[in-house]
This record gives sequence, C-alpha cells and structure tokens, in this order.
Amino acid sequence: MKPSIPSGTRDFGPEVMQKRQYILNTIRQNFELFGYQPIETPAMEKITTLTGKYGEEGDQLIFKILNSRIHDSKNKDLLKKEFELSLESSRNSEELTERALRYDLTVPFARFVVMNQGQLTFPFKRYQIQPVWRADKPQKGRYREFYQCDADVIGSNSLINELELISMMDKCFNELKVPVVIKFNNRKILTAISQVIEEPGKIIDITVAIDKLDKIGKEGVNKELAEKGVSEIAIDTLQPLLDFKGTNTEKVSILKQLLGNNTTGVEGIEEIEYLLNHSKTTTAILELDITLARGLNYYTGTIFEVKTNAGTFTPSILGGGRYDDLTGIFGLPNMSGVGISFGIDRIYDVMEELNLFPESISKTAGVKVLFTHFDAESQNHCLSLAAQLRAQSISCEIYPDLTKKPGKQFDYANKKNIPFVCTVGSNEMTTGLYALKDMTSGTKHQLTINDLITFVK
Amino acid sequence: MKPSIPSGTRDFGPEVMQKRQYILNTIRQNFELFGYQPIETPAMEKITTLTGKYGEEGDQLIFKILNSRIHDSKNKDLLKKEFELSLESSRNSEELTERALRYDLTVPFARFVVMNQGQLTFPFKRYQIQPVWRADKPQKGRYREFYQCDADVIGSNSLINELELISMMDKCFNELKVPVVIKFNNRKILTAISQVIEEPGKIIDITVAIDKLDKIGKEGVNKELAEKGVSEIAIDTLQPLLDFKGTNTEKVSILKQLLGNNTTGVEGIEEIEYLLNHSKTTTAILELDITLARGLNYYTGTIFEVKTNAGTFTPSILGGGRYDDLTGIFGLPNMSGVGISFGIDRIYDVMEELNLFPESISKTAGVKVLFTHFDAESQNHCLSLAAQLRAQSISCEIYPDLTKKPGKQFDYANKKNIPFVCTVGSNEMTTGLYALKDMTSGTKHQLTINDLITFVK
Repeated sequence: MKPSIPSGTRDFGPEVMQKRQYILNTIRQNFELFGYQPIETPAMEKITTLTGKYGEEGDQLIFKILNSRIHDSKNKDLLKKEFELSLESSRNSEELTERALRYDLTVPFARFVVMNQGQLTFPFKRYQIQPVWRADKPQKGRYREFYQCDADVIGSNSLINELELISMMDKCFNELKVPVVIKFNNRKILTAISQVIEEPGKIIDITVAIDKLDKIGKEGVNKELAEKGVSEIAIDTLQPLLDFKGTNTEKVSILKQLLGNNTTGVEGIEEIEYLLNHSKTTTAILELDITLARGLNYYTGTIFEVKTNAGTFTPSILGGGRYDDLTGIFGLPNMSGVGISFGIDRIYDVMEELNLFPESISKTAGVKVLFTHFDAESQNHCLSLAAQLRAQSISCEIYPDLTKKPGKQFDYANKKNIPFVCTVGSNEMTTGLYALKDMTSGTKHQLTINDLITFVK
Repeated sequence: MKPSIPSGTRDFGPEVMQKRQYILNTIRQNFELFGYQPIETPAMEKITTLTGKYGEEGDQLIFKILNSRIHDSKNKDLLKKEFELSLESSRNSEELTERALRYDLTVPFARFVVMNQGQLTFPFKRYQIQPVWRADKPQKGRYREFYQCDADVIGSNSLINELELISMMDKCFNELKVPVVIKFNNRKILTAISQVIEEPGKIIDITVAIDKLDKIGKEGVNKELAEKGVSEIAIDTLQPLLDFKGTNTEKVSILKQLLGNNTTGVEGIEEIEYLLNHSKTTTAILELDITLARGLNYYTGTIFEVKTNAGTFTPSILGGGRYDDLTGIFGLPNMSGVGISFGIDRIYDVMEELNLFPESISKTAGVKVLFTHFDAESQNHCLSLAAQLRAQSISCEIYPDLTKKPGKQFDYANKKNIPFVCTVGSNEMTTGLYALKDMTSGTKHQLTINDLITFVK
C-alpha cells in the first residue's frame, strides 16, 4: 500500500521544524519575559465543553471522537450494527461521542480557569502553545490541524494589560523582523455607532458592511446597508466614517464629533486615547481601524489584529481582544480577560516569502561536526572523541556505517549541511592530531582534540 | 454546568509544566547533541495507516474520529438517523471513520520515512516529542493521552548506533540525576534458545514464561512451560538460564556454553560482547537480562529497557530496540532501524518521589521582578522600567490593577513566588532611585534602574 496522510494535515521535516521552532521560541521567550506562565490542556475535551461556544457553523467543524467499541470501518453493515449496539449499550446517549478535539485554546482555557480557580493566583497570566483541529474545507493556508499560540490575562480589567500586549506583540514581530501594522478598535465604538444612528438592533449588519469597505467601496457599503434596512438618515450620519482616513488623532476627533455625547462612545474613545498616549514608542505602526470587528459577538472592549504590510499577500497573522465574561458559561461570572493569538502558520508563510529566516538557523540547530573513519578500529576511536565534544555541548555524530569510501561520508556531511568533518585514521590515532575540514571554506586543519573543541566553539 | 475533562486526560498547570519542560529540554538537548533532528507528524492519521500494526488488542485501543457530519450527540434517534445518512452518502465506507488518533510515534515515523524517502539523507536520525492516544482503562500512571519522546536512526545496521543510544540515555538520566539500570538483551538469544531446546515454535510461550521469573519463581516458570507443552528435556536444558545470575561476563559464558554452536546464538553473543566491551564508561549500571523480551514480535536484535533502582516503585521509564523491517509494511523493505522511547510521565513521577527537581526551576522559569505602584501615574511610569528590564532579558511584570493597598501587590508576588519587588511612587519617580525588596531575605535596596538591572542579573 502507498501511505498518505489525511487532507488538511501536514508532516514537518527537520528543516521546517527548525524554522517553526525559531518562531515559537522567539514568541515563547517574550511570553515569559512579560510574565505569562505555560499551561497545557488535553487535546480531547468533553463534547459538552465545546459545543455551543462557536456558533452553529463552529459546532459542525468540531471533530468528534468515536466510542472505541466501533473498530471495523471496512464493512458498512457491521459498522451500522456495531453503532446501533453501542448506541443501545451506552449508559447515556453522549457516551458514543463523549469526546471531541479542541477547536481552539480559548474555551479550554476558560474551562481550566473555572476548574482550577482555587489554586490560581489572579490576575492569572497564562500562555499556551498547542495544536487545534477544525473540520474545515482545506485550502491554501487553511489546515484541519494547526498550532495556536495564545497569551491571555484573566481577572483584571485594567487597560495596562492591553498596553503590555501591544508592546509584547511589537517586540515579537520586531525580533522576527516581520514588518507589521498593529490595528486596533474598540467594541464600544461599534455599539455607540449603532446607537447614535438609532439602529442598535442592526449593529452586526452595520459592522459586517463597514468591514467590507476596502473590498466593495463606499457605494457598495451604502447599498448593502440599505438592503439590510438601515434608514437613509442613519446611512447619511455614517458617511464620515466611510471617509475615515488620516492620522489616529484625526480619526479620534471625527469619532468625538460623531459619538461625542454617547456614554458608551465616550468610554470607547477614552480607552482608545489611553492606548494611543502610552504606545508612542512601538516599532510597528499602530493604527486605529474602526472597521475592525473580528469575533464581534465575543469581544467587549479592545479588538486587535496584526497584518504584515510587506509581501504579496497580507493575511492576518495575529488576532485578539478583551472579553468580559468568557468563564461565565462555566459558572464563574465577572472575570474580565484580554488576550492575543499568534497565527504561526501564516507568520511562517510570510517569513518564507520575505526570506526572513536567518541563515544561521540550520547551522546552529543542526550537527556541528561529523566524525569519519576507515575501519571498525578508527570508528570506535571516534566514540571517546564524540563524548568529549558533547561534554562541551558541541553537537556531533559518528558516521554509523563502515565504508572504505570517504566520499560517501563527506556526501552525508554535505547533504545534512554539517559545517565540519573530522577524519580519524591510524595516523590521527597515533599522533593525536586530527584532520578537521571546514566544509564551507574547504580549508583543512591539524588539531589536537582540545584545540579542535576551542576551534569549533 | 460544572466543567470537567475526559477520564484519563490531564491539565498541566504552570508549576507542573515547568518541571515537565525541564525533563523534555534535557532530553531534547541530548537528542540534538547526538545528531538527531526534530520532526512532527499529524495527530490524525488515516485509519488504514494505523490498524493492523499493534495487534488486535492494540487496534481496539485506537481512538477513531467521527465524520463531522454527525453533530448532535444529545438525541439518540437523530444520531442514529444522521449516522445512517452519512453512511449512505459516504463515497466509501471508510469515510465515516477515515481518521484516527495516533497510537504511538513509531508507525507514523515509518509512514513518514516511506512518504519522504526521496528528500531524506540516510542513515536518517530523527527525534519526535508529541502526545499519543490510547483508549486504555485509565489507572495510576496510565493515561489515555500522554507524551512519547522518541529517538530513532533508520537505514543503518551498524552496532555503533546501539552504543550511541546507550551513551545518550546514560547522559540524559545522569543529568536528570535519576539513578538507573540500563537492561539489554538480544532477540537472537531468545531465538537461539528456542532452537537449541528444539522448541522453535514455542519461542513466545518460552519468553513469556521466563519473563515472569522474578514474579513466579523457578518452579512457577517450569510449571508454565510444562503446561504450554514444552518437553521435559527442553525444560531441563533451560535450567541454567533460570539460575542466570552474576556479572555480565559470567552470563555471557553461560550463554556460550548453552548456545555455543547455534549460528543465531553466536551472532547474538557477538553483538552483546561488542556492546559490553565499548560501554565501559557508563555512569548507569549496564545489565544483560535475557528475560527481557518487550515487543518480541517487533524487535529483531538488541532490546533496551531502563528502570530506576531507587524509590518505592521501579517502573520501566524507557524502552526500545532494533527492528529490521519497520517500513516494509508501507512498501520500503530492508531498512534496519534502532530507537528508544522515553516515558516522560513515569520519569516525572520518579523524580517527584525522589525529590530530584532542582529548587531553581520555578525561580529561573518564573518572573524575576514585580513592579508595584500607588496610582495610574506611577503605574504608567513602570511601563518604561519594565521595557528596560526585558531588553536585558529579565522577566518582569507590572501589577495590573490599581489598588491603594501595597499589601495586595506583595501577596501576589509571594503567591507567584517572584523573588524581587520594585515599588514605584512619587519619590522614586523624582529621584530615579527605586526601592527593590528581596522577597527571600527581606532586605531592601535603593537603586537606579541600571544598578537594579545589574543587581537582579
């Protein structure tokens, strides 16, 4: 049989792994620098924990795990019979698909906080880097199994958390050398707008329409608004927002004119101004974007989205925001939280396209020295040499097979791009002087093992 | 609703995570020092890739993933109806449970090697650290979701690989300070024994019986052998093996007497002697144990098992061995490989019981400095201070909420055991001299931000 993997899933070979680890380590180090602590939750959650949290569409994308009683998947009739059997015998109807694969890291995090509230110190800052699964139609850049990389603080409604998150994402993308725009908005602005134009019930329709501005243009948006039954006066009042350009300060003043005396609006504007006044030193461009509305039904305050402003495609590579009652669904109300999620698959694609991975990665992550030899005796001699290098934290390996052809061993070094090759023969063993070849420059050196160690370091 | 997680699964909080990461990082660093490269495979494999590789029992422990069309698990009848519907509409009977969760990392690795043979450099050395899933009955130390931590080299039958694996496991457990016995055996010895006593067909019965020696004793083993129909002469010939004691050298000479002129036996003994002669410097005890037979149907040469010789319970914390045709099942024959798998859950339990985790872990992994304050102004002042510490790779955080009570902020530091607290008030802001409290000793210092950085480092 010719083996294959399920559509929407991927294998990661050594080279890709090293690049992914470079991204994840950069982000992880910054998470810890900012005081976020690691947690992990199981891939399997109770189905009741997940369903009803992601909307009806989301629910259908949850991968459910079959009761293990059903094991023959070849025979349709047998499968049906077994299914009915286990259906009868199951203590409750849920036993059959009691478990499901997590759809994101946010709901499991809320579940974790509620279950462990006694042991946790609040405000609780956690980070979590694990795969999630979605039965989505696979397409370029969209997978059925992919990593999420989240940092959240829960149990604090202070805006300093938003500031810290901004400087953390800024530091991460700066270190990864990915040029980005940090877009932000505030749910309160969107609420206020719908109130001011006296269409509070149409907040979602309005946001969805405004969200399309750069795609379908001003006329398109107005058309859609009319279709959705938004009144003419309302549409007229909205116009300044559709010409919403200029600096953040200019945008804020437009908002003040439009929402000036709406309480929710005033709150939202205050929060926006606070973030702008204390984020003056970011390397990234910080842009107020009132069309930004991701996960509207979910966020209650600040909303974040990061895009790269370089490259041919500019996908969203980070999303996040403030939620005021995430743990409420599990019986722990009034826990305000805010968090961000890095899309590391997309960050990877962007870094590949812009060629941002440092040359050094493979060299530093890979093997430094390969020991080559001519016979069993010289191969065994390599064992103690390798041990001495490893004691000095130098990664090395011994060519495992016995071969008369040194060429074959050098090919191996080239293919794995190992920078140094040390050849051990009878001369080397007697003199204690080893031939070290620099595979990049081609130069050769005669060194004692100690000099070799210092040289390679 | 009161949330919970599926039986046999676990959440890992910050403290446990830091200890697990300490174990995994130690092992990972050594994998890389010995030239093993990281790969990852998807949690989901095609069901056809997994079934038939783990024996009938194993197959029943594979978690299968339900076709996502079935989403309502509350209503039995609806569930049944949906199941039948998707059964009819499925292009082939497997679509319904097309996918399953991986049961181990070895079969996915074999599948990976076969699919990527064109791009790989052989001998291929890979390591892989990922969770696996088994629908086993949960009990102490046995979980339905747990990590495996594997290193394998494939495409080389040289015994130097076994030597390198021995020195790698020795180095790992030595650094983790876990006192261990590295037990090893050779499948060829077991084959030879069954041939010599002229019961080649009974090799499994014989090994299973001998494997119980320390539990049921000599008489028990002989009784079981008789029951299994092993001839009296055969049982007599076996007796020296049941009194199999003494040094490795003594054991080898007993084997030589018993198997001396059996070709497979001679091979096995040669391999054993080679390993013993070149592993004289191990810190761990290296013990030849001919009753060791784990995964007999699977291994073809050397067999490894590591146990700790301290603590109240001495579980197997590592297993592995040589397999001559793992990729054959996927159409790539004659690829000999050898590998080991660390049982990190058990290593964790052993280290907890023996109290082997260094004090330093939480201190080094956690936050170094907490900034406390009295009002919005002093809190905002902390932002630039925190940035300066983080630029020097010092992990720190700012107490997020505004509170008049310094006590509350110090409690937070104590609970998260943060070693230093820096208090910022109006005096500090004007003088640029900050009050730093060492939470362990209780001593206080007045420092400029630069002195504070040097002091904390």
